[in-house]
Amino acid sequence: MDIEDKKTYLDKWFEYLQSQICKQFEKIEKDSKSSKKFISNDWYKDNQAGGGTYKILSNGKIFDKVGVNKSTVSGIFSKKFRKKIPGAEKNGKYWASGISVVAHMKNPKIPAMHFNTRFIVTSKSWFGGGIDLTPSHKDKKEEKYFHSKLKIVCKENRKNYNKYKAWCDRYFFLPHRNEKRGIGGIFFDYENKNWEKNFKFVRDVGMTFIKVSENIIKRKINLKYNDNDKEMQLLKRGRYVEFNLLYDRGTKFGLNSGGNTKAILMSLPPKAKW
Amino acid sequence: MDIEDKKTYLDKWFEYLQSQICKQFEKIEKDSKSSKKFISNDWYKDNQAGGGTYKILSNGKIFDKVGVNKSTVSGIFSKKFRKKIPGAEKNGKYWASGISVVAHMKNPKIPAMHFNTRFIVTSKSWFGGGIDLTPSHKDKKEEKYFHSKLKIVCKENRKNYNKYKAWCDRYFFLPHRNEKRGIGGIFFDYENKNWEKNFKFVRDVGMTFIKVSENIIKRKINLKYNDNDKEMQLLKRGRYVEFNLLYDRGTKFGLNSGGNTKAILMSLPPKAKW
Repeated sequence: MDIEDKKTYLDKWFEYLQSQICKQFEKIEKDSKSSKKFISNDWYKDNQAGGGTYKILSNGKIFDKVGVNKSTVSGIFSKKFRKKIPGAEKNGKYWASGISVVAHMKNPKIPAMHFNTRFIVTSKSWFGGGIDLTPSHKDKKEEKYFHSKLKIVCKENRKNYNKYKAWCDRYFFLPHRNEKRGIGGIFFDYENKNWEKNFKFVRDVGMTFIKVSENIIKRKINLKYNDNDKEMQLLKRGRYVEFNLLYDRGTKFGLNSGGNTKAILMSLPPKAKW
Repeated sequence: MDIEDKKTYLDKWFEYLQSQICKQFEKIEKDSKSSKKFISNDWYKDNQAGGGTYKILSNGKIFDKVGVNKSTVSGIFSKKFRKKIPGAEKNGKYWASGISVVAHMKNPKIPAMHFNTRFIVTSKSWFGGGIDLTPSHKDKKEEKYFHSKLKIVCKENRKNYNKYKAWCDRYFFLPHRNEKRGIGGIFFDYENKNWEKNFKFVRDVGMTFIKVSENIIKRKINLKYNDNDKEMQLLKRGRYVEFNLLYDRGTKFGLNSGGNTKAILMSLPPKAKW
């Protein structure tokens, strides 16, 4: 398949997945007798270099704030940035499409959720992405369930689950606190061997996120919590902010490449404490 | 004067100033019938390379959270860092002493305050520092008063107020939001011409901070505020967090040079919103 066709497929897939995730999350709100809906915002890069749509649902009964961000952009990397991106060394040209989701929950017993998949094209092309959870409360059963589902989607696609799990642990780590951000999950990047199989894997990871997030939320939706639980969640969110602003590659990439600030920082929680 | 004597003078001065600032702020709490005091924490770098003392007063009647941090450290900069620091190119050796204060107020009508002065020694040596305010409410009278006092301390010390003011505006700026962090103040660095005069200026800036902060706080201590005012303050604090974690040189310097994380991140507000 031609690279232009691949781009079109990915752009359409991320758009479709965004609509499915939003539908699913609105249904979860509705089941809790909330009429909260996503509010959609479009943005455009200069010079017909693409743009994106970020959808945010705030102040729901289940979601304190959830953002579902899809963007498809192109351009030329700055000379400084080129060295860091495979295949961009020569002329800096890139095309990128992706979806990212960050969900901060009202109930502190339900973990914060993060999901992202992307397809990048320079003179090379590859897939990346991942899913991970950031609970403020220990829940061994949930942890086991979550990792087992990720193991299955990797196995079905003949992907190295252990490698992706270790990568995730390494990535979501706060060195200045010597702390993990959360309980990990999977993280993969530079997947470029077999486009068809990788595209299927990326689609499966997206559908896994929808299913797993629904199950984790529904299992805990009625759990009681107290002020102390909420306090622990807000302090954990402080760490989340530290990670995203100090270390996250996507945040740095976005802010350094003329992305939309509101879309990029949609990952920040509605409220955090230190 | 010998450089070792200069180091001793500065270390003692910053220690004295820290005690004076804490005394002043505890008095402001006491005048409001609060018995809140600073809690003091010492930390040490490995290998007898110094350390510091950070003092925090939390949950007062006036101060939501105020940190007063003094540290005196030495060491060898990493090869990567050396290029960025004057006089450190050859062997990377440094000695640094300084004080920094960040005050987040309960009453959103009172601006957040930031003050810092420092003396750095490599094969060169110089002073740096500044004072700036971050209000969440416009107050032209306060702004005028604040800048006029900084102008006076600069003038009395034959320092270029306009240069320092412009430097401050340039530094406390969030490019990704195209927003200033606050209303500015003064910011200076690499002051190395006349040690005696610079030391006096740095002492005067410290005493100016004590005087000006007291006046700004006392003028507004009884002002009423509503939920909307508080909300505006919490959103402004979100910007403050963004600046400190994305751009602040002191934060980056600290986290990259084995400083104490709690002391460095003492600048973060107790609570913030996005």
